Amino acid sequence: MDTAISSSLLQSLHCSQCGQSYSPFTRQTVSVCCQMPLLASYQLNQGLDKAELLFREKSLWRYAELLPVLDPKNRVSLGEGFTPLLALPRLANTYSMRQLTLKDEGLNPTGSFKARGLSLAISKAKENGETACIVPTAGNAGVAMAAYCARAGLDAVVVMPRHTPEAFREECLAYGATVILIDGLINDCAAKVQDMNRYGDYFDVSTLKEPYRLEGKKTMGYEIAEQLNWQLPDVIMYPTGGGTGLIGLWKAFQEMKELGWLPADQPMPRLVAVQAENCCPVVETFWGRQANCKQYIGRPTLANGLAVPRPIGEPLMLKVLQESGGTAIAVSEEQMLEGVRELGRHEGLFVAPEGGAIWAATKQLLHDGWLRSDEHILLLNTGSGQKYLDNLKGIWQTQEHT
Amino acid sequence: MDTAISSSLLQSLHCSQCGQSYSPFTRQTVSVCCQMPLLASYQLNQGLDKAELLFREKSLWRYAELLPVLDPKNRVSLGEGFTPLLALPRLANTYSMRQLTLKDEGLNPTGSFKARGLSLAISKAKENGETACIVPTAGNAGVAMAAYCARAGLDAVVVMPRHTPEAFREECLAYGATVILIDGLINDCAAKVQDMNRYGDYFDVSTLKEPYRLEGKKTMGYEIAEQLNWQLPDVIMYPTGGGTGLIGLWKAFQEMKELGWLPADQPMPRLVAVQAENCCPVVETFWGRQANCKQYIGRPTLANGLAVPRPIGEPLMLKVLQESGGTAIAVSEEQMLEGVRELGRHEGLFVAPEGGAIWAATKQLLHDGWLRSDEHILLLNTGSGQKYLDNLKGIWQTQEHT
Repeated sequence: MDTAISSSLLQSLHCSQCGQSYSPFTRQTVSVCCQMPLLASYQLNQGLDKAELLFREKSLWRYAELLPVLDPKNRVSLGEGFTPLLALPRLANTYSMRQLTLKDEGLNPTGSFKARGLSLAISKAKENGETACIVPTAGNAGVAMAAYCARAGLDAVVVMPRHTPEAFREECLAYGATVILIDGLINDCAAKVQDMNRYGDYFDVSTLKEPYRLEGKKTMGYEIAEQLNWQLPDVIMYPTGGGTGLIGLWKAFQEMKELGWLPADQPMPRLVAVQAENCCPVVETFWGRQANCKQYIGRPTLANGLAVPRPIGEPLMLKVLQESGGTAIAVSEEQMLEGVRELGRHEGLFVAPEGGAIWAATKQLLHDGWLRSDEHILLLNTGSGQKYLDNLKGIWQTQEHT
Repeated sequence: MDTAISSSLLQSLHCSQCGQSYSPFTRQTVSVCCQMPLLASYQLNQGLDKAELLFREKSLWRYAELLPVLDPKNRVSLGEGFTPLLALPRLANTYSMRQLTLKDEGLNPTGSFKARGLSLAISKAKENGETACIVPTAGNAGVAMAAYCARAGLDAVVVMPRHTPEAFREECLAYGATVILIDGLINDCAAKVQDMNRYGDYFDVSTLKEPYRLEGKKTMGYEIAEQLNWQLPDVIMYPTGGGTGLIGLWKAFQEMKELGWLPADQPMPRLVAVQAENCCPVVETFWGRQANCKQYIGRPTLANGLAVPRPIGEPLMLKVLQESGGTAIAVSEEQMLEGVRELGRHEGLFVAPEGGAIWAATKQLLHDGWLRSDEHILLLNTGSGQKYLDNLKGIWQTQEHT
């Protein structure tokens, strides 16, 4: 209920491939020129003072000037963002690491980082006068879209793979959304969405096919900086499906440099894309085993959010990995589960398999020497394990007496 | 990662029945004199300035002076507290209400308000050198205890009714706790705990049988005041099982008056205890249909947290209802579910049946004229619907296309 002075500094949208400009005041999808994602830019030379943040509400709306919503009454909010950044001293100690932290995105509304992107996308949908939204999803994005549409009074259609755990479907139904189940992965769901939306009846909020989910996700980067008192970590481990968060983190760091919010000599973190062995298109391209992901065939994984075989954002992700000096790595299903178990038992965190994957990858990269034990390594846990119960039950190796 | 100056103003513990003093520096359970809950008191005349809160972290630890943990290194935290306070304009509009807000405790670690109490209880257990904790639970408290014990490196034993939804058991196992299932309700689990702990091997963190869970819960009252800029609502609707939150809210309001944090002429909110028709001991006693709850027989309810047939805190709860000018009301299972459905569809909130119950009770009391439509009514939603999926699935009356 705090008040935040809102005055978006949004300036324009431009094609991420060729730079052509687009209006930020009408419905936009991908760029007409290159059929690639549109990126938002802001007037960052207005002397925006980060000291102002002290007086702002504890949600992502504290960065209102750097978000695309023009009129505060169009904000569709369930309290998303400003999630805890936790030290993990017990795991760090066990593995002789100097500084290990975890940003717990599971404490967002609907239990995942998807709340950030969908809060922004649905706010802009409302601002643009849309009345119905549609999305193909591996699970969490659909749940978040359904919740924010309910909050805004918009109709929602969610298209997800038939093998998605029941909890995701039930929660969409709880928000009054229409749920459609498809045999296949998220790219098959995307095909169904394109077919259903051939006359443009819905606003399509597919990952990176509208410009504003990215703007919500980037707030993770602002928060990491603010919560660490503007001293960024050395490395960020990120579970990568569609990749909006990876691209968003990097966008935030660039914007903060321009704003003068980061010390001039601050090194940028290396960003690591963590994927599942069952579906690791970005790892394959990064290591030169394919030219790009356009023909990649993925299999389902326990980490539903990582099952994105042909992400439209691949070129942007590869650019981030390259510019940041990062890397890409895949882990097995069993490694993920062991990661989930360790975070639960040693730190009291019940993470999704995606969260288990980044911890597993961290151990692997430490072992390989790519990570050093004296670095500050940040795990970006994208969601709670709660909705993955179908996938996780029985893995605990713990006692139950009945 | 913010820093908060910690310097607990904890002064003493005293018996809630006769006032006898007890040391706050050793293991305490109920009072030796009356076998009743112990309450903590603080030195509230130290000129503590609420303006200081501006610089504090976004968690319940922002009120560190008013919490019992003496050494900040004993804090066991997963980022609990400072949950969102949301306006519900769509529901308010539908029911012609002036101001309806909801505090969403589902965004706490482990998905419920129990995180507050258990964070404090386990922090004090750590401070007192305990190594193993035990608790009887309807579900959420056990999950929270297991998580905070894992975070602190303490052993955990959780005793819960066999009919508790699977998600609660699985999450306890994820934190490495030992889970014991019992035929019956939470009072039967309490008997099992007493038997297992006859030699005092465990620290027993049963509701109100140690003094510090209450101190965690009271922070909801501080937050409500702070988030509403120190203007309290007219009425707070509270789903009441063990009642620690109800008692804690009232304790916070009294402390804030003493601290001078509330305007002198500020009327106190009326507090409403909402229970399930299947298990409503406090309603029965409040309305004079029994002398007290000591012989009350309850039945299971979809709202597991309300299935507390003989709460030790009943006298304290009745005192709060009386002093605040509140009331007590029970709702049916079907009313709860309708409440869950409405909050989901109209506001994008997936609440536990307990949350559905308070909305159902609000509508009933509006209809009865006990609540007025021009009042500011605050719903205290104690947890997310996520772990209740076994109880909720199929109730949505929404479309799914397979």
